[in-house]
Amino acid sequence: MLRDPSIKYRPFPPIVLPDRQWPSRTITKAPRWLSTDLRDGNQALIDPMDAEKKQRFFDLICRVGIKEIEVGFPSAGATEFDFISGLVRENRIPDDVTVQVLTQARRDLIDTTFESLRGAKTGIVHVYNAVSPAWRKIVFGMSRDEVKQIAIDAAMMLRDNAAAQPDTDWRFEYSPETFSTAEIDFSVEVCAAVMDVLRPTADRPIIFNLPATVECATPNVYADQIEYFCRNIPNRDAVIVSLHTHNDRGTGVAAAELGMMAGADRVEGCLLGNGERTGNCDLVTVAMNLYTQGVDPGLDFSDIDEVVKTVEYCTNIPVHPRTPYAGDLVFTAFSGSHQDAIKKGFAAQEAKNDTLWEVPYLPIDPADLGRSYEAVIRVNSQSGKGGVAWVLEQDKGLKLPKRMQADFSRHVQRLADESSRELNAADIWGAFVQAYRLEQPQRFALGAYDETRAPNGDRIFAGSIEVDGVQQSVSGRGNGLISSVVAAIKEGFGIDLDVSDYAEHAIGHGSGAQAAAYVECRTPDGRTIWGVGIDEDVATASVRAILSAASAVE
Amino acid sequence: MLRDPSIKYRPFPPIVLPDRQWPSRTITKAPRWLSTDLRDGNQALIDPMDAEKKQRFFDLICRVGIKEIEVGFPSAGATEFDFISGLVRENRIPDDVTVQVLTQARRDLIDTTFESLRGAKTGIVHVYNAVSPAWRKIVFGMSRDEVKQIAIDAAMMLRDNAAAQPDTDWRFEYSPETFSTAEIDFSVEVCAAVMDVLRPTADRPIIFNLPATVECATPNVYADQIEYFCRNIPNRDAVIVSLHTHNDRGTGVAAAELGMMAGADRVEGCLLGNGERTGNCDLVTVAMNLYTQGVDPGLDFSDIDEVVKTVEYCTNIPVHPRTPYAGDLVFTAFSGSHQDAIKKGFAAQEAKNDTLWEVPYLPIDPADLGRSYEAVIRVNSQSGKGGVAWVLEQDKGLKLPKRMQADFSRHVQRLADESSRELNAADIWGAFVQAYRLEQPQRFALGAYDETRAPNGDRIFAGSIEVDGVQQSVSGRGNGLISSVVAAIKEGFGIDLDVSDYAEHAIGHGSGAQAAAYVECRTPDGRTIWGVGIDEDVATASVRAILSAASAVE
Repeated sequence: MLRDPSIKYRPFPPIVLPDRQWPSRTITKAPRWLSTDLRDGNQALIDPMDAEKKQRFFDLICRVGIKEIEVGFPSAGATEFDFISGLVRENRIPDDVTVQVLTQARRDLIDTTFESLRGAKTGIVHVYNAVSPAWRKIVFGMSRDEVKQIAIDAAMMLRDNAAAQPDTDWRFEYSPETFSTAEIDFSVEVCAAVMDVLRPTADRPIIFNLPATVECATPNVYADQIEYFCRNIPNRDAVIVSLHTHNDRGTGVAAAELGMMAGADRVEGCLLGNGERTGNCDLVTVAMNLYTQGVDPGLDFSDIDEVVKTVEYCTNIPVHPRTPYAGDLVFTAFSGSHQDAIKKGFAAQEAKNDTLWEVPYLPIDPADLGRSYEAVIRVNSQSGKGGVAWVLEQDKGLKLPKRMQADFSRHVQRLADESSRELNAADIWGAFVQAYRLEQPQRFALGAYDETRAPNGDRIFAGSIEVDGVQQSVSGRGNGLISSVVAAIKEGFGIDLDVSDYAEHAIGHGSGAQAAAYVECRTPDGRTIWGVGIDEDVATASVRAILSAASAVE
Repeated sequence: MLRDPSIKYRPFPPIVLPDRQWPSRTITKAPRWLSTDLRDGNQALIDPMDAEKKQRFFDLICRVGIKEIEVGFPSAGATEFDFISGLVRENRIPDDVTVQVLTQARRDLIDTTFESLRGAKTGIVHVYNAVSPAWRKIVFGMSRDEVKQIAIDAAMMLRDNAAAQPDTDWRFEYSPETFSTAEIDFSVEVCAAVMDVLRPTADRPIIFNLPATVECATPNVYADQIEYFCRNIPNRDAVIVSLHTHNDRGTGVAAAELGMMAGADRVEGCLLGNGERTGNCDLVTVAMNLYTQGVDPGLDFSDIDEVVKTVEYCTNIPVHPRTPYAGDLVFTAFSGSHQDAIKKGFAAQEAKNDTLWEVPYLPIDPADLGRSYEAVIRVNSQSGKGGVAWVLEQDKGLKLPKRMQADFSRHVQRLADESSRELNAADIWGAFVQAYRLEQPQRFALGAYDETRAPNGDRIFAGSIEVDGVQQSVSGRGNGLISSVVAAIKEGFGIDLDVSDYAEHAIGHGSGAQAAAYVECRTPDGRTIWGVGIDEDVATASVRAILSAASAVE
């Protein structure tokens, strides 16, 4: 890298549009979508798709509801041509789907392109030529007029080829390639010249696709370009303005969104952002971004895992775990405070009356994408009590009292620090069993016991407890079950506990339900000890909780 | 997914800022950078980094030139605390680097946090509390005033703890967490209250970090929020406005860029965009985006592969092949027209006098990132003649005439269609050897020959040629070397060739250089045949080229 990059790179010249309107707008309806997975996506693969993979991908695109599909570049070779003509010949295009084919602006290629869709009910022929000064100079050695003439000639070929195959309802798309780095007035001029040939109407509009072939500026500049184009192209009603962004600066989705605000009607892109170099605009992200604003994208990603699987199979490129809406980790919170907030959010969501989604750290309900809540929280050394408590609750049905959550999280913290890895539910359960001395055999094993009432109303606990393998009878008296057991333990084993808190709840419902009891005790030397008891009987669970606490005292 | 998502999700309410200035601005200088790889990045890992990985990552961050590094959350556990205090104790923080530590707004945690940096020369203590209505309601059950009081109390603790450790030059950062989903005036009010306690000055400014904790709107909304904050925070000179974006909508980089245009001074993020859920703002992309506009980012990614390797090792998450600037495929073009344009771009770049980078489809010179040109072009069934020719030129030094490129690309196309996979340089060379009959033994093997001049000036070729293993003497006469060899072949073998084009060039420089000759011939039945000859001697290369062409004729 250069210390002074200005000797090699220049700032992108801004568009002069002081009265731009787009920054005050919001997107209130879905655009038309075009998938170019089988064209721009496919051409960027190390191993391009074979016919079987193309068909699978085509079916996926149809399934999610995209109605315009660019299926390839028929003149590029036999593989492409045969797949495309096969779709038509074998009636594999759904009635409500229109396929689109790309061609360069040359007569032989355009002829082959029309030939590939012979017999189709409808078809969009997409022709392009690059219009920017760098391309004119470096690639073609042509003047503006010569470049414009290429587009005009191509438009005439489109018109004449369409007339020669009148049984198909032909639509046309023209891309001034490298639009985003071209002089904006020249792009408008070339597109207007194409309109002069093809004479689109509001009923039979032409698609002008305006590519950020290479992303070269902040996304607001692209929005300015789109707004300028929309305001200056003649006969705007007869034009569908289409966006086609790439992601060289990591802002391809943003450029598409700001471009929609700037007046565009249509978005081209790929599922999960495959495509040349850094990829095309990710249609899943743009669509789901609309969805989270309450705008129906008209696409269905209810089974996002299926989309991911198919795209990975066909492209042979793994979807990154942090890909918005689709990645493995995007509904996962490791941080303790995040986990705690999410837990509260789910609880509040269940409790409230309206349907509005409002869960901290989750901009969308994972269930809407077919993902599960269980995947939300994972535990590592960065996690706090909230996450740990959540896992115990999800996995074992245990709802720990708040101070006990703090106690237990210290145990988990230590384990996580020692193991330096993510802890799974089994690890956490193991830590719980160890922390509260629930391993079998327990130090104090409860045998048969009776709980009776003394004449003055006191409770009397009398039972058999096995201590380190030796059976022993104990009894105690108190104003309730807990205090009678505490008394029995003091008398029988000399263990002095002061119960400062107590909680109990059912685990599960119905006849198979169990009870979990938690006791917080203080010892004479000031230690705080938590005990846990689980049993089919609520009373017995309490007794076991006391014994669990007692077993911590030497 | 719901057919009508508006029952569950609401559009983000826009900021009223009709006189916004940011859309007309461009970014002309680099921000201050803060890496939170060891905090926000680390806390989002399935396997958080151990001390060795943290140290490696810390060293990488220092090496690329980031001067402010958030090193962790010292009160989160022993691993965190020990690593951070170890950096200080063992003098592992470079003099020009300031470490930053994060803490929640609680006295015990803040105490531990200051303790972790005991003895440091400088340190930034970063305290946060969430201010948005959803968090206030769901997570804390607190009023605005209570939430503001948390921030004020925390500021007082920062002030007092700093006073108690006066040997360290303490700086403060306050984050109104969930800033992007909070009422903007409340965020300003809370920050102003923090300023009232900490009394920052232009010389000792406070950092206000304004997180898009969850990305919830198009990136222009975040820019509006930042501009509003910058215009309304009192004593703006005493404030460093810091951006901290996440990527839930895939527009985290865009939000940071528009936020810089809106007046921010500082950007927090992670190298290659690690971080909670969809990740933090990718600092590599933001920095390199500046670089491609001629703005020095003050960071050095000259060895991007080293950055990728270290980040992958420490996070255990692979960098996606389409990650801007860093992915394996981002300087790769498979499409034929792209390859052709890039080839012309490199040639023009070499030929021209200025240093300005201007190569189609490559927004940056890969060499600036330590990547090589050779990786630029790969060949598959979607590739055209340009790419194939480029590979031959790069790999073998052969510069095929344009019409021969077209001829050879048909051979490669067929091979690519048959093999359905990417072709490597060896595949292409194999196809070349086969297409132009250069396998050993060749049908016509050139032995010794003489080239003499007849009295009338004609050239006379007389030599020995081995045909299918049998030695044969031939001779021919013409007005030059080529025509004399053609005559000899006609006379000796009855093969009639009409040479319509001829080209020759040196391969390499100096004494080891070879020559490559190409001849385009027509046969009496109208076929076009290309021949290729390679030899140390320019004349012999031409002879071989004719023999290569002749060997195609039965």
